[in-house]
Amino acid sequence: MADQFRGKKILITGGLGFIGSNLARKLVEFDAKITIVDSLIEEYGGNLFNIDGFKDRLQVNIADVRDPHSMAYLVRDHDYLFNLAGQTSHVDSMTDPDTDLEINCRAQLSILEACRRHNPTVKIVFAGTRQIYGKPDYLPVNEAHAIRPVDVNGINKMAGEHYHILYNNVYGIPACGLRLTNTYGPRMRVKDARQTFLGVWIRRIIEGDTFEVWGGDQLRDFTYVDDAVEALMLAATSDEANGRVFNLGGFRPFSLKELADLLVEKYGGGKYQIREFPADRKQIDIGSFYSDFSSIRESLGWEPIISEAEGLAATIKFYQAHLKHYL
Amino acid sequence: MADQFRGKKILITGGLGFIGSNLARKLVEFDAKITIVDSLIEEYGGNLFNIDGFKDRLQVNIADVRDPHSMAYLVRDHDYLFNLAGQTSHVDSMTDPDTDLEINCRAQLSILEACRRHNPTVKIVFAGTRQIYGKPDYLPVNEAHAIRPVDVNGINKMAGEHYHILYNNVYGIPACGLRLTNTYGPRMRVKDARQTFLGVWIRRIIEGDTFEVWGGDQLRDFTYVDDAVEALMLAATSDEANGRVFNLGGFRPFSLKELADLLVEKYGGGKYQIREFPADRKQIDIGSFYSDFSSIRESLGWEPIISEAEGLAATIKFYQAHLKHYL
Repeated sequence: MADQFRGKKILITGGLGFIGSNLARKLVEFDAKITIVDSLIEEYGGNLFNIDGFKDRLQVNIADVRDPHSMAYLVRDHDYLFNLAGQTSHVDSMTDPDTDLEINCRAQLSILEACRRHNPTVKIVFAGTRQIYGKPDYLPVNEAHAIRPVDVNGINKMAGEHYHILYNNVYGIPACGLRLTNTYGPRMRVKDARQTFLGVWIRRIIEGDTFEVWGGDQLRDFTYVDDAVEALMLAATSDEANGRVFNLGGFRPFSLKELADLLVEKYGGGKYQIREFPADRKQIDIGSFYSDFSSIRESLGWEPIISEAEGLAATIKFYQAHLKHYL
Repeated sequence: MADQFRGKKILITGGLGFIGSNLARKLVEFDAKITIVDSLIEEYGGNLFNIDGFKDRLQVNIADVRDPHSMAYLVRDHDYLFNLAGQTSHVDSMTDPDTDLEINCRAQLSILEACRRHNPTVKIVFAGTRQIYGKPDYLPVNEAHAIRPVDVNGINKMAGEHYHILYNNVYGIPACGLRLTNTYGPRMRVKDARQTFLGVWIRRIIEGDTFEVWGGDQLRDFTYVDDAVEALMLAATSDEANGRVFNLGGFRPFSLKELADLLVEKYGGGKYQIREFPADRKQIDIGSFYSDFSSIRESLGWEPIISEAEGLAATIKFYQAHLKHYL
């Protein structure tokens, strides 16, 4: 893999965010020439501390993916585009659907148009979400499952994914999508639950507060961020991925209560409280979900290798050292 | 049905267009209080002649569904909203994807937001399209078929449909969608193929020109506009439809060549020429398509009642009398 990225020009939208910065951290080890695009919007995942320790080995370009002019320039002359910028909050997408649409639909289309005009050979990997499936008909959910998003964010992310596959199919711009499930690890947003509830759990446990588990019995799968980064890189370097979408997944399904117990165990203390689902979330909750990732395993050889126990331990350690940069 | 619409306040977006004007024509017979919203954009389906003969029995409000301010006012105080405004050209959606997104996604979301704030009890019927299915895995295509749009228009119409179902499910605004297949009849656009190829065939045959049949063997289904209007009205007046989407369909599948022969027969003359699919269309062509409409038949009792022979005869008659208003 190192050979495939060495000296290559790589653009990462949302590169100061959780997954983008972890990806950048890995790619600098391969001596790739990385440009990060990020808008550093307060409510989103971007954080300059995320590139602390390797910021001199890449370029940071502050820009918003909604700005077609800067994107039309920035996409030029790159070998890979990891298209990770997005609005991720389900609740925000319902209170402000237009902003979600601007970022998750319109900006995606304008990035693809920019590539079509200015860099049609760039390989694009789009970060999609399992959220587009909605409430599962069966478990585990494979890629053939019906797409029935239960919030505006899911609808827009679905459209964004489709644009990428369309531009691959019609214009031959090599593109593929990964449907990420609950990704967690160092550099995730912990200020609130806009990115992941697990960030809030970890923040509270470190701060000595009781954390809240909504529901508790519902099953979920969790991907440690290093595993997600590996999947992004495999998808980028595989022609077989072009025009396709792949689920990511976790080692095994965990109930939220079981995960909370594991977190307390790994932290060596801490308390949580089971709570009823708040009304505004219940409307768009999907019950249990975990994905079947056999397609990417068979096609690209990916599978998660960091267990939830290891992943939580590493995440706790990171935030014990650096929490103040994330508040 | 007449009783359900008598005296009711009805808003029709795209109401000067093909299907909207035929719907309005039917609804004025029921003494409904109709307001038509249309932007009369040159390239779209709106045409003031479409309401010739009944224009004094309704209100025409020129506005663009992309304008959230006028829509926020216009949706108030209506019992029914037939949401038919859209960009329909597949080719235009590829050359100008942003405009397609503005109309088929963003405007839809803003109309729904307007209803949520100002008229959450309005019943909404959304005009979707079979085009969102893409190239069929099997025939006839039912609503459970995978959604795999092959152009930007299909992706955006898919998102637009999902928004409607979401607002039904989350906010209880009663909404449903119909997935229209090739609808044809009086008042369709015949100037070019932006709305339907059949319009161009009919124009050419009346003008004494040879019309072109692209391909010829692919199967399609055709709904006469009066049947489509009946489906819209049934969907509007049925609570059972809320939160659901239904395919429309035709009597039986026709190959394009067979349909061309029927047109020549009904016109009593005329010539056509089989042509290879042009390159820019072939990329997004889907082969044969016809839909399974058993779901709407079982739920709402709808089925097409005008045969292709009758429908073509009526359409020819209309354009023989009125062609000059459509050029």
